[in-house]
Amino acid sequence: MDANLEVGNRREAAGLKPVHFGWDVVGKVGVITLNRPERKNPLTFESYAELRDLFRLLAYADDVRTVVVQGAGGNFCSGGDVHEIIGPLTKMSMPDLLAFTRMTGDLVKAMRACPQPIVSAIDGVCAGAGAIIAMSSDLRLGTARSKVAFLFSRVGLAGCDMGACAMLPRIIGQGRASELLYTGRNMPGDEALAWGFYNRVVAEDELNAAAVALAQDLASGPTFGHAMTKKMLHQEWAMGVDEAIESEAQAQAICMMTQDFHRAYNAFANKQRPSFEGT
Amino acid sequence: MDANLEVGNRREAAGLKPVHFGWDVVGKVGVITLNRPERKNPLTFESYAELRDLFRLLAYADDVRTVVVQGAGGNFCSGGDVHEIIGPLTKMSMPDLLAFTRMTGDLVKAMRACPQPIVSAIDGVCAGAGAIIAMSSDLRLGTARSKVAFLFSRVGLAGCDMGACAMLPRIIGQGRASELLYTGRNMPGDEALAWGFYNRVVAEDELNAAAVALAQDLASGPTFGHAMTKKMLHQEWAMGVDEAIESEAQAQAICMMTQDFHRAYNAFANKQRPSFEGT
Amino acid sequence: MDANLEVGNRREAAGLKPVHFGWDVVGKVGVITLNRPERKNPLTFESYAELRDLFRLLAYADDVRTVVVQGAGGNFCSGGDVHEIIGPLTKMSMPDLLAFTRMTGDLVKAMRACPQPIVSAIDGVCAGAGAIIAMSSDLRLGTARSKVAFLFSRVGLAGCDMGACAMLPRIIGQGRASELLYTGRNMPGDEALAWGFYNRVVAEDELNAAAVALAQDLASGPTFGHAMTKKMLHQEWAMGVDEAIESEAQAQAICMMTQDFHRAYNAFANKQRPSFEGT
Repeated sequence: MDANLEVGNRREAAGLKPVHFGWDVVGKVGVITLNRPERKNPLTFESYAELRDLFRLLAYADDVRTVVVQGAGGNFCSGGDVHEIIGPLTKMSMPDLLAFTRMTGDLVKAMRACPQPIVSAIDGVCAGAGAIIAMSSDLRLGTARSKVAFLFSRVGLAGCDMGACAMLPRIIGQGRASELLYTGRNMPGDEALAWGFYNRVVAEDELNAAAVALAQDLASGPTFGHAMTKKMLHQEWAMGVDEAIESEAQAQAICMMTQDFHRAYNAFANKQRPSFEGT
Repeated sequence: MDANLEVGNRREAAGLKPVHFGWDVVGKVGVITLNRPERKNPLTFESYAELRDLFRLLAYADDVRTVVVQGAGGNFCSGGDVHEIIGPLTKMSMPDLLAFTRMTGDLVKAMRACPQPIVSAIDGVCAGAGAIIAMSSDLRLGTARSKVAFLFSRVGLAGCDMGACAMLPRIIGQGRASELLYTGRNMPGDEALAWGFYNRVVAEDELNAAAVALAQDLASGPTFGHAMTKKMLHQEWAMGVDEAIESEAQAQAICMMTQDFHRAYNAFANKQRPSFEGT
Repeated sequence: MDANLEVGNRREAAGLKPVHFGWDVVGKVGVITLNRPERKNPLTFESYAELRDLFRLLAYADDVRTVVVQGAGGNFCSGGDVHEIIGPLTKMSMPDLLAFTRMTGDLVKAMRACPQPIVSAIDGVCAGAGAIIAMSSDLRLGTARSKVAFLFSRVGLAGCDMGACAMLPRIIGQGRASELLYTGRNMPGDEALAWGFYNRVVAEDELNAAAVALAQDLASGPTFGHAMTKKMLHQEWAMGVDEAIESEAQAQAICMMTQDFHRAYNAFANKQRPSFEGT
């Protein structure tokens, strides 16, 4: 039991019962399943908010060390539902529109702020807000048949949605991101792999298992260190090189105080494989 | 007629008659043709200034929604003319040199500040300031035989010209950009495609038509949204992720007030293809 | 003789006799050889400090214009020695740990601050701090059999070491960098080339010669300009586009005052190849 528990800061993620998507905890991996397969798993106002709340809670949960996001029925996510989101938006006042775009942005902020690396498993349609959720993950596995589309321009909007103009260029390059954001066209699986959007392309029937295996692998690693890696990838985004180096000197010195660092050294000294506990 | 017209802020781009390059408006696409083919379309002090002025005017023009930049005679642009620019520069005082480098930088600033996405069509030689114009465009189509060279080091200068040390690394990666900027070597067409500098490689005799077709396609889209995408790609360049997300929440809420967003929803609701007007 | 000499600011690099690594000056190229091949060239507290001091001195040396870093015996560098570094670190206080992480960070800062472009020649094992030295170089040549591993997570630490969370994403993209930093896995030579980490893959027995040849080529170029390119690549890292363009207008105007710029123009005017002197 760590100090975090004693100060009452801890939340348990395993017992949650979200209403608008599936949630299973397998070992230390939390698996989110977007599960309205008959509509290709669109998002609604309610599912946005509940996803945001889950990722915010994960910042205080230590029973879950990595997260997988997947879709049910061969598709990842078709984005904001035309009837349940886009229709109502066309009737809203500016304050309500801004409340909506801030809520969707808060989902991405929460995904980037939680300490758990997030692995998305992308098959079939991955469009609009679905593409954003994929982009906002730490790692992405996809299938050859998957289609990722930042299709905001197709619904008359701008490509600057939920951080896409900041994040997508850093993943696939400024020129390629510009094309996808202006045109809204599909990025097929082979292109997503060649451009570094996907970390790996996997057969359709092995996709979800591969994502969970990767997440389990990370969850059995030095998760305090992983959380620091994620934090610093975020923190150093717009920092000068020298400032980033000083920030990492501090961050890594903190990690050198962890037992996992000692565990690794002792294992190497004894020619064993280290067993990490995340503390 | 929109409010922009009434306040006298509007400029018409279609009627312009530039002296130092070609300018045609096809539908809502403005086509710039660098047209001194006998010298591979070099730039001069005058053409730099006139290009800068055109892109500055485009910020207030709504008759042109996208821009194509192409070269005459199978080459894109050979950069600053050796006799008309480099020679005089070797005789200038520091204040005059700085006035020159600021003028060339102002061309790039104007290209990034105008609301129209810019598509470059790159064939043959694309060197020095030509490579910068290509780099400063939003999208790039090229040919297999094209050669892009940031050849500043070949004339005894640094690679830091008109924003190249900032922009090129974000397009093709820091290591590849470093190589091109230090060595000044040619990047051939296949490499430009593989590295994400080109969005597509096209046959030589189809290049200009393909660039215009892409520009027309974008011009028939939600151009208010496109302009916001371009603005935010620029605005978020050195912003933290969280700040970028808030900026996009505001920018996209603005776009949700446009008629193009409503047009898209109505079209989808009626199972039609939306027709955008840029308002 | 230049003003730099007269003010007593100049240091000579050719005469140095480092204790913990090899150092040869071939023409104007300084060659660092990590040379404890029996342990795959690990770093120690002493070699870190001595490397840092060399790169700091190079900021004032004009007898060396480019630097090559290579390893002896078919490996580049295995990183911080398990017995000589990791063991002692597990027993240190926080102030001492921070002094260590700052020293290692200072090596990277010194590599980025010296005016000489650095070419790494990477064969065999390139792990931990070795991968950081490769990453912190300007250009990288590698072999097909080489294995680059940011393996900090394997020793229970975070991937944020010596600037990796800032620099690696800009070289290979945010998604690919995330994978390497979280998992600590090897990046093989073909992947390093495809991802833009390597500028070129070279046969093992030609690697060091190719790196020296590239460094010699750069050393015979406009080295005042190269140094400015390196400075601006660093300086503009977290700058907005418009600010970067103004910075480059100033930097390039400075370079236009150099004799190398005049030498290039005169050579072109006389249809000769320019001969640069770095002034």
